Amino acid sequence: MPGPEPGVLELVRRGHEERVLRLLGEHGALSRGRLGTLSGLSRSTLSDIVGALQARGAVVATTPDATRRGPGRPAEVLTLNPLAGQTVGLDFGHQRVHVAVANAAQEIVGTATRGYARTTSWGRRLELAVALVDSLRADLGALQGIGVGVTGAGDSRKRESELVVERLTERWGVPVLVDNNTRLAALAEVLRGAGNGCSDVVYVRLSHGIGGGVVVGGRLLRGARGTAGEIGHVPVGSVDADGLPCPCGGRGCLETYASIPAILRAAGQPDLPEALAAREAGDPAARAAFDRAGRALGIALAGVCATLSPERIIVAGEVAPAVLESAEAALHLHLSPALHHGLRLHPASLGDEVGALGALALVSHESPLLSGYPDPVRKDRA
Amino acid sequence: MPGPEPGVLELVRRGHEERVLRLLGEHGALSRGRLGTLSGLSRSTLSDIVGALQARGAVVATTPDATRRGPGRPAEVLTLNPLAGQTVGLDFGHQRVHVAVANAAQEIVGTATRGYARTTSWGRRLELAVALVDSLRADLGALQGIGVGVTGAGDSRKRESELVVERLTERWGVPVLVDNNTRLAALAEVLRGAGNGCSDVVYVRLSHGIGGGVVVGGRLLRGARGTAGEIGHVPVGSVDADGLPCPCGGRGCLETYASIPAILRAAGQPDLPEALAAREAGDPAARAAFDRAGRALGIALAGVCATLSPERIIVAGEVAPAVLESAEAALHLHLSPALHHGLRLHPASLGDEVGALGALALVSHESPLLSGYPDPVRKDRA
Repeated sequence: MPGPEPGVLELVRRGHEERVLRLLGEHGALSRGRLGTLSGLSRSTLSDIVGALQARGAVVATTPDATRRGPGRPAEVLTLNPLAGQTVGLDFGHQRVHVAVANAAQEIVGTATRGYARTTSWGRRLELAVALVDSLRADLGALQGIGVGVTGAGDSRKRESELVVERLTERWGVPVLVDNNTRLAALAEVLRGAGNGCSDVVYVRLSHGIGGGVVVGGRLLRGARGTAGEIGHVPVGSVDADGLPCPCGGRGCLETYASIPAILRAAGQPDLPEALAAREAGDPAARAAFDRAGRALGIALAGVCATLSPERIIVAGEVAPAVLESAEAALHLHLSPALHHGLRLHPASLGDEVGALGALALVSHESPLLSGYPDPVRKDRA
Repeated sequence: MPGPEPGVLELVRRGHEERVLRLLGEHGALSRGRLGTLSGLSRSTLSDIVGALQARGAVVATTPDATRRGPGRPAEVLTLNPLAGQTVGLDFGHQRVHVAVANAAQEIVGTATRGYARTTSWGRRLELAVALVDSLRADLGALQGIGVGVTGAGDSRKRESELVVERLTERWGVPVLVDNNTRLAALAEVLRGAGNGCSDVVYVRLSHGIGGGVVVGGRLLRGARGTAGEIGHVPVGSVDADGLPCPCGGRGCLETYASIPAILRAAGQPDLPEALAAREAGDPAARAAFDRAGRALGIALAGVCATLSPERIIVAGEVAPAVLESAEAALHLHLSPALHHGLRLHPASLGDEVGALGALALVSHESPLLSGYPDPVRKDRA
């Protein structure tokens, strides 16, 4: 869904806005004069940038010592606005929707979950989500935007995305931004979880499907066609055999080895709890199935490491704890020490709400991680 | 070799410099007033930034219509300096060194090549390179810096890099920057060759070894440990067999299938010309060897595509023409159409001098592709 490339002046402008937001984020509060010095922007450019940020509620001007007596005008300072307005994050999985509501300081003021069947229509899913948001009785009087995570990547989610945007815009009249929910989970883990403070992160989530997200040089990656981070579809089959067909249309994808259905098939178990119990009890088929899934994960991650040289790898999902060890062994076996640098696999640290948290971050768009990402607020008011 | 992370103010400053250089690159020549308007920088910040760029010779002020008669002072304009000084690019391969000399407008004013044995010491290689540069009799009176490409990645080239920097600094007294030569080739192909104008590029070069480079979001990628782009070491073995050991210390790497030695072994041929001739003549073993190398390449690139969603893939090296077709077929077989988007494999368009051209670009450091890269000139004068 990326639009046409912005022109150089638009890039200059975005750069200025991000710089001002970053300086305010670092310093807490700054006078216009000090902000001008630190940012190097001219008085008129700064006034223009700050005006736009104030207009959309991201920045506020306050006078901390207004009651002070003495000569001269009390100094006005600029700060990020902690009460700028609310954001809503929705994460539509295959069988449930999570919702999270936050203020502009990214403080979560409410979360909720509602299940549905895999066959539930998108119209119905959206009704359920809207009702769920309403049930939180959060003050949405200054709602700024809605971030939405959906499964699937690129064109495969185009129709769903359009419906989501249409219905939610109709209901709330604010910008709606849709992205892949696992990529949003990666964003949340880097902002608030196991990847916090890292600028080069690979995130992979093992569940009924396998998805992922990558942060490169401090920026969440979309890629040229918007499908970056699909680590579940890295082929780990063999050069001499094509590998199993994957539902995606590819062959030998990581997902055909390490998704929950693939593991259950290999283990001959009916569901994940039973498969995990069988593995614990030493059942050879169950152990082999998890070990093989781990090897497949390690090989896929070895390729990703050789390509990206990440700082941290995060593995999420119900299956993760049972495959981390064999995956790490395979990563270290297949990759040169000069390329894996002893890198460990880190379990994810956020819970089920991770996708909704990422959706909130997407729509509030106040992180340098989202540099290069479309900004719904700015687009809407342009 | 990346240093400590620069602080936010240093980042702000670099951002300003890159913006000024980019605006001058786009517009050719600009008055200070117009540059101020377009960049949004204050008079004092602009003066500071332009002063630094002038001091290191990247920007010059000229008066195009100085002979004009009439009221008022003739307008001074700022331009990128086409005569800023020379840069030298060196590319040390396993058996030869390429050299290229350029002026600051990136116009090549001389190139040369000299072979050596694989066993030739680094001290001797450097002597040969220095003599080769001297033989060009180029005017190096305002030499700005030397970019050097070497084989290998990360720590494996640490000692060689130190020796290179020491000897060349001793000889010319200018900043020397060393990087992986295949990554530099990727940079050159994106600046001047098959990837020109693209912001997300995967480049892979098949030769005695296999290397690569990736450009992500318009930036050449180093990765957290400096080893990004090692596509030759993406594992393409099987989950159920570890694959052959690779000289790198990994297993089942692309290089163990698709390097020249691997192909010759599989084809039972003594050298590449004979192997290519046998393939042309329909020899089954030779055909199978090249097809298998192509499949391995396609599988490795499928994984890279799923991870990065590139805009263009470039395949370089003597082997490339003989494997492109089977590689593309494997890429499309293993990857979902929603992820490969019909992407084709492009042959590289630059010749043997590509690494030296990339080394020139590295040291002149005037491309946004190098944003985030260490800048030897700036570092030297800081």
